[in-house]
Amino acid sequence: MSNGEQKFEVTGFQAGGMAAGIKEDGRKDLALLYSEVPAKAAGIFTTNVFKAAPVLLDMERIKSGTTRAVIVNSGNANAATGDEGYQDAVKMARFCAGALQIDEAQVLVASTGVIGRKLPIDKVAGNVSKLVKGLSPGGIPEAAQAIMTTDRYPKIQYREGPVGGSDICVCGIAKGAGMIEPGMATLLAFVLTDADVDDQAMKRALREAADQSFNAISVDGCMSTNDTVLLLANGLAGNRRIRTSTRDFAVFTGMLADVMTELAKSIVRDGEGATKLIEIVVEGAKSAGDAKTVAYQIARSNLVKTAFYGGDPNWGRIISAAGAAGVALDPSAVDLTFDGVPLFRQGQGIAGHLQELVEIMKKDHIRVVVKLGQGTKSFRVFSSDLTLDYVKINAHYTT
Amino acid sequence: MSNGEQKFEVTGFQAGGMAAGIKEDGRKDLALLYSEVPAKAAGIFTTNVFKAAPVLLDMERIKSGTTRAVIVNSGNANAATGDEGYQDAVKMARFCAGALQIDEAQVLVASTGVIGRKLPIDKVAGNVSKLVKGLSPGGIPEAAQAIMTTDRYPKIQYREGPVGGSDICVCGIAKGAGMIEPGMATLLAFVLTDADVDDQAMKRALREAADQSFNAISVDGCMSTNDTVLLLANGLAGNRRIRTSTRDFAVFTGMLADVMTELAKSIVRDGEGATKLIEIVVEGAKSAGDAKTVAYQIARSNLVKTAFYGGDPNWGRIISAAGAAGVALDPSAVDLTFDGVPLFRQGQGIAGHLQELVEIMKKDHIRVVVKLGQGTKSFRVFSSDLTLDYVKINAHYTT
Repeated sequence: MSNGEQKFEVTGFQAGGMAAGIKEDGRKDLALLYSEVPAKAAGIFTTNVFKAAPVLLDMERIKSGTTRAVIVNSGNANAATGDEGYQDAVKMARFCAGALQIDEAQVLVASTGVIGRKLPIDKVAGNVSKLVKGLSPGGIPEAAQAIMTTDRYPKIQYREGPVGGSDICVCGIAKGAGMIEPGMATLLAFVLTDADVDDQAMKRALREAADQSFNAISVDGCMSTNDTVLLLANGLAGNRRIRTSTRDFAVFTGMLADVMTELAKSIVRDGEGATKLIEIVVEGAKSAGDAKTVAYQIARSNLVKTAFYGGDPNWGRIISAAGAAGVALDPSAVDLTFDGVPLFRQGQGIAGHLQELVEIMKKDHIRVVVKLGQGTKSFRVFSSDLTLDYVKINAHYTT
Repeated sequence: MSNGEQKFEVTGFQAGGMAAGIKEDGRKDLALLYSEVPAKAAGIFTTNVFKAAPVLLDMERIKSGTTRAVIVNSGNANAATGDEGYQDAVKMARFCAGALQIDEAQVLVASTGVIGRKLPIDKVAGNVSKLVKGLSPGGIPEAAQAIMTTDRYPKIQYREGPVGGSDICVCGIAKGAGMIEPGMATLLAFVLTDADVDDQAMKRALREAADQSFNAISVDGCMSTNDTVLLLANGLAGNRRIRTSTRDFAVFTGMLADVMTELAKSIVRDGEGATKLIEIVVEGAKSAGDAKTVAYQIARSNLVKTAFYGGDPNWGRIISAAGAAGVALDPSAVDLTFDGVPLFRQGQGIAGHLQELVEIMKKDHIRVVVKLGQGTKSFRVFSSDLTLDYVKINAHYTT
């Protein structure tokens, strides 16, 4: 995703990543994001009731609304580790705060990797000084590498533009819903901006952008114990403070949504074993909720996902999934297209486009549009295909 | 499932099955179940909004509460076929009624197979006389064969016992949730009994038995356009009429549930590519709804299903699925066992049983018990593993 000419820097932020020996294969596994001044912070966390220790800690700490640093390890999720795990998360933040000489309450923590095993906290303790020494304004791509688990490539996105009288920038990194050993689909994403944003606008912009991006992807419908999305805004761009219900807010949220949507798409593309990005758009619904329900029912269907893997333009599986969503539909009003080519209309399949469809099914990004013919609401979800590699990767892990 | 000594006959019923050329490979594809006297009938049909033509027809006809015959074809689902398809379903019943010399309104119809293609109604017309001529009291196993699509074996179950002063018998046949080309997980089941059952007891017994059996299995969470379960009772056993809220009702419903549960289990075992039956029992829930929600969330998880395929005792995937079900749980109260061996308790994994677990994971029926520690309600669901063969079978169909 990165290239030599693109700069991934945000005024006032430093970052870094290193190999601390938490992963056994020697890859980078410890990342740090640091704001030179206190940054506003907002977060979205997994709704799984089995929340990992760092999630529980962050949910408390984010209430203050300000943060100086986020320390992240990969290779161990520090989940299902009980009280000892929680104390390890506290220690991880404390060691980091000590090395940075900041208040430990201003440090957030995230972990991803194997669950149910004690975090090797000594490896964090022994390496955090080196991690801090390695911080630099250009270190965000290194951090993106250090949070990877089974991801095939780092995920980083950058946007800049004028908001409130200044140029602001937004840079985000993420790691994948790549069915992490031993089986968590952990999503971690950290978005840094130099914009000046008020407290309410922070929360709302993050929520709106997440609903269009990380909350609109499906790799296998599993939600991890560790999912965490954090937004840090240090205000150094000098823009007019962004408040809700303003044009500035809309522009800022759009930039945020753009960064997060591209990250989300790269996560789907990098889903374990995935070979195709399937964009499912449900239009003409009575409510956004109906549109989302139908879209996810299609996105999660193993029959739909295997059909795309096999290159089969199998409209029957899609309409059957739509029909099973629990939303009252009129079959004769439903219309289905793949990349604009019609497959189903007025309760019947449409013949005569097989060759076009065979070509479309070979593409690595296919847009499926289902029109319900009931109203004006829509929802889009990004899904992936279900492949032999998905089963191989996830079946043959040994505890 | 059948064996030479077991008799599959129900007083007053005749059945048969033949190859009518609807399937291209020459296998049996047309089945008939016939009651010598008018039989009480109750049915449960797919809730998919895209209902196949025969489902729409049966939902109307079953309102009368009596039936003489059910004609079933495999190889073509007569789904997404519009008005013409509905007329074909009507014709299929009419031809059958003509050959049997009964009222066409007393004939029900079911279809399973490829969707979106016109039913070759001429093949029904040309063979129905022969089908009727082949009827016999011992023909139920032939009918079980003729309703198969990708099923590896026919599914038939028989129970008999004393109810209301007479010996009654219950015999059921089913075809699988085996992800039928081009992708419908069609479940068809037909249960015949010689018991005398009143109208209300018919409906309620079928519903209760289905909730424990066909509504408690998950192969891949897909619901077909054609799912149909019919109960026919001709009353020839001469028992005291079975009415709700009686001991007779409980015994009858138990027999029905027993037949239908064994059929359901054989459908899961025969799920496409499945190698293992995974019995997921959620206990200690506040409500039956909570228990069912958690059980299905686990049963449907691709990560759980691939772990069982791979033989990995991966408790993390199970607790994560349970935690994502949207039911408020106390992680420290949750307890997980595989065949009685503990894996997770009080918020943490339990070490020390790896060798036992490795042996359990090799079995072809594994019982997973999740205790929520919140109440007294429970739910059981039968699931299967997700295998390389599942993906191969479902990816490489070509339209």
